[in-house]
Amino acid sequence: MIQTIAPRTGTAFRLARGQVLTVIDPQGEQVSDMVAYNADDPEEYLSSGRSIDYASRLFLSTGDILFSNRSRPMLEIGEDRVGRHDFTLTPCSKDTFRILYGDKTPHHGCQGNLEQALKPFGIAPDRITVAFNVFMHVAIDAETGEISVRPPLSKADDFTRFRADMDLIVGLTACSAGQSNNFSYKPIQYRVD
Amino acid sequence: MIQTIAPRTGTAFRLARGQVLTVIDPQGEQVSDMVAYNADDPEEYLSSGRSIDYASRLFLSTGDILFSNRSRPMLEIGEDRVGRHDFTLTPCSKDTFRILYGDKTPHHGCQGNLEQALKPFGIAPDRITVAFNVFMHVAIDAETGEISVRPPLSKADDFTRFRADMDLIVGLTACSAGQSNNFSYKPIQYRVD
Repeated sequence: MIQTIAPRTGTAFRLARGQVLTVIDPQGEQVSDMVAYNADDPEEYLSSGRSIDYASRLFLSTGDILFSNRSRPMLEIGEDRVGRHDFTLTPCSKDTFRILYGDKTPHHGCQGNLEQALKPFGIAPDRITVAFNVFMHVAIDAETGEISVRPPLSKADDFTRFRADMDLIVGLTACSAGQSNNFSYKPIQYRVD
Repeated sequence: MIQTIAPRTGTAFRLARGQVLTVIDPQGEQVSDMVAYNADDPEEYLSSGRSIDYASRLFLSTGDILFSNRSRPMLEIGEDRVGRHDFTLTPCSKDTFRILYGDKTPHHGCQGNLEQALKPFGIAPDRITVAFNVFMHVAIDAETGEISVRPPLSKADDFTRFRADMDLIVGLTACSAGQSNNFSYKPIQYRVD
């Protein structure tokens, strides 16, 4: 069954080992920030640093493994209709909108949405680290290191699949940052099989 | 007074707000993994994701601010004789040597050294996230995202300075990974003024 995450909101759910999570971009050009924790011990979390190190690549796609801080496989990327995601940035937050966008009354962002969604699982705000930002297109200048957030490469109904390698708590959003989704806040869909 | 961190070891210490930490590469081509925590509340830690987002740059140098997960300034980079550091990878660990190098009896790496050094401050192993890897030279292919760890650009006695924006616990290593330091394990020096 397909679940819909409304624009600028988020959710969290259990994903059992062996289950497949499909993250779908129903309208195209939308981003979904994903975080994950070992369901039996949430001190073990998705680690960008470990995953990038073991893949020797910043951009991960089909066949790549997302590792935990304890160097254990958490998720493996399956079919990937987009092939470009970000794994360097933290979820957008009140402070992101204040510092980067100069908003006077900033939205609480993906950070706020994940905090609310993860609370019932006993996962504290400080445990939200660098996310696997599904469909997020961050261009890099290899000389200067400058990054620029571009509209995602995803078209309507594109998706990426992830198979769980352990029992997980997964947090997932429909991104709240204009820069990430070409200033058109859209829903995200997902299904678990 | 200059302190020396012996090859393949690490240390941790308090750095008061306003103090300046100078990280020195006495022989050249060595890396020092740095992590930092709010001394009054170690749940607040150095965040690669926040810092890269606010700088809009992967490579940080003079004038750039290293932010915490709570979006507060922790350290500001001062004089920087090298200008190239990494902020995407986690400290090398037993698993790094096992997975990337195929070592049968792997060294415990910067992760192990930081775990030992941070323990007296009550900071647990799972709290060691992506480090600011001083002098680490990670080349990036902007098209494929492939990364390759190159010898640091640092020459003997090059240094980088960091001014503390809050009272901190800082962990610092002389890196244990051959790839990072051109397969010559060397000391790191530092001073606090």
